[in-house]
Amino acid sequence: MREVFIKKLVSLMNKDGLDAVMICPSEEMKFLLGYAPMMCERFQGLFIKKDGSLFYLCNLIYTGELKNIFNDLRIISWFDGDFMDDAVSKLLESEGLSGKKIGVNTSAPAFWVLDVAKKLDITFVNARPLLEEIRIIKTDEELENLRISAAITDKVFSGVIEFIKPGMLEAEVRDFITSEMIKHGGIKPWALVASGPNSSFPHYTGGERVIESPDVVLLDFGCSYNDMCSDMSRMIFVGSATEEQKKVYDICRKATEAGEAACFEGAFIPDIDKASREVVNNAGYSDAFFTRLGHGIGFMGHEAPDIKVSNPRKLEKGMAFTVEPGINLLGKFGMRVEDVVAITENGAEILNKSTHEMIIV
Amino acid sequence: MREVFIKKLVSLMNKDGLDAVMICPSEEMKFLLGYAPMMCERFQGLFIKKDGSLFYLCNLIYTGELKNIFNDLRIISWFDGDFMDDAVSKLLESEGLSGKKIGVNTSAPAFWVLDVAKKLDITFVNARPLLEEIRIIKTDEELENLRISAAITDKVFSGVIEFIKPGMLEAEVRDFITSEMIKHGGIKPWALVASGPNSSFPHYTGGERVIESPDVVLLDFGCSYNDMCSDMSRMIFVGSATEEQKKVYDICRKATEAGEAACFEGAFIPDIDKASREVVNNAGYSDAFFTRLGHGIGFMGHEAPDIKVSNPRKLEKGMAFTVEPGINLLGKFGMRVEDVVAITENGAEILNKSTHEMIIV
Repeated sequence: MREVFIKKLVSLMNKDGLDAVMICPSEEMKFLLGYAPMMCERFQGLFIKKDGSLFYLCNLIYTGELKNIFNDLRIISWFDGDFMDDAVSKLLESEGLSGKKIGVNTSAPAFWVLDVAKKLDITFVNARPLLEEIRIIKTDEELENLRISAAITDKVFSGVIEFIKPGMLEAEVRDFITSEMIKHGGIKPWALVASGPNSSFPHYTGGERVIESPDVVLLDFGCSYNDMCSDMSRMIFVGSATEEQKKVYDICRKATEAGEAACFEGAFIPDIDKASREVVNNAGYSDAFFTRLGHGIGFMGHEAPDIKVSNPRKLEKGMAFTVEPGINLLGKFGMRVEDVVAITENGAEILNKSTHEMIIV
Repeated sequence: MREVFIKKLVSLMNKDGLDAVMICPSEEMKFLLGYAPMMCERFQGLFIKKDGSLFYLCNLIYTGELKNIFNDLRIISWFDGDFMDDAVSKLLESEGLSGKKIGVNTSAPAFWVLDVAKKLDITFVNARPLLEEIRIIKTDEELENLRISAAITDKVFSGVIEFIKPGMLEAEVRDFITSEMIKHGGIKPWALVASGPNSSFPHYTGGERVIESPDVVLLDFGCSYNDMCSDMSRMIFVGSATEEQKKVYDICRKATEAGEAACFEGAFIPDIDKASREVVNNAGYSDAFFTRLGHGIGFMGHEAPDIKVSNPRKLEKGMAFTVEPGINLLGKFGMRVEDVVAITENGAEILNKSTHEMIIV
């Protein structure tokens, strides 16, 4: 159990007037407890009260396993045969939480809290910002692990350049990338490989298109190393690239570099977004850049700080985030060049070292 | 898009006084749309209004891919650079949903709806029961697929009996089971393999214990076939079984059979739970049977009807569910024998055909 972070959370909770925070199974729970049970339809969560005390509320199905792992965690349980909302409400009432204000983490399902809220006159509120705030400044050790995690993606990218060939399925390239990340020491690897028109869908979920020649392939992938995530995007052009593709790639690359150049300790986050976005807008592609510039990264792949115009805060030493402007011409092609940047004693350190030069294989 | 089920949902929605239902990416969405986008931290969902009209609300990141898949789905989108709650609230307001009552599915995160609810005076309520109700009576085709899905688990179980050996990790047996299910035509296979004391944790998540001799091993596994799920549990005793284990196994098996014998069209669900639970209670193990008797099964692994004392309805033709009483002696061992049962023209049809006899390998 990470006592230091629980203390930070309790302090923020008190500042925000919350009586408790409920954290359901998720990365957020793993961060604090080092473990998260399976999540099914049965109400469960770690409750942290504003006095710093903790309890875990769950169905009896999970009690034994939790007791086996944590001998000092107080567990209160409900029985499957009962109405879930009634059983959970009784337990929360016995904890003095009727009428109170409770923050919830990102995995708390609405259908768990809505009925309980009504029964007990509890005001549930979004506690995601608090749970992100406790992790937003990385320690030296975490920064070092972020560097290693980024280095794994760099190494794997060199390998993909050799591996990728026309005739392959997107899914084959995806599986190659994830298995290579494991070989290089990464855990929880993931990869998005989108070719041709699919590259214009920023969160493309398919994998069944055959890579052609010529073709444009977007790779977005990452893993975790000692709990610290990586996230990198690069383009590979198979066979050749059209004049339009060369032009768009050049804008993308310059937009990433303009964003990165605007990063320094004390930089106002909206200015970073602006510096990068201007490159794209001035080239006439403003409609095709419809995402934020980047997102914080650390224990979770997406966490604070978001790099976007509506996040009016300044970069601090220890923050880590992506810079990933994209030009997405829907149904045609999409491109982005994404690096992880951290504000360290070396300034704005770009953790990914892979080239931004156009790669044609 | 499954128009028939959307119509059913709209009819239930009107009966319950809901103005709309919001369905976030999930199995519930896949059931209705045949597709669900990736789910990230950005608010998105399919909205079905009480007049039967639909729209999909999402971040621009998903718009292109959705338009590519559904050319007749109305999509309204928000931009990443904006505050999420403000942007989403504006869109919902423009759809006339301010001050309305909106049901949510099981994957809707609380942190998405809590702030929007306050801004727009929307009352969000739990729509899980409605989304389950539209699927609770299986068609003949669905019943046939449930039979095939159960037959896959039966076949794989025969194979595991040959495969399992002392010295193997639980994870090795788990991986064997999932790969065998795929070989036999199952998709989305999953398996829980819990040996020794781990078998007493009903939702055991580990896999690193080495199977010994003698040892008790609990297997709980399933897959999907033409969208219909299977879910089966059996025990394998490695080497030998103690007198206590033989006694407890005998009670478990009889409890399953008593539950199954109480199933028929028109049976009152709490009576089924009672019939099975009495066997366990009379044998003195009431404290060790701390779960519901079973759960409905179909498109999702867990759906209506729950087989438990607090579900006061009657079995109808076309319902399908598990019967799985368990005796869990925490830290010692746990056992259960689980079959899928369907109410068909043949009566209460037990879809799993694997023996309930004690298996010692």
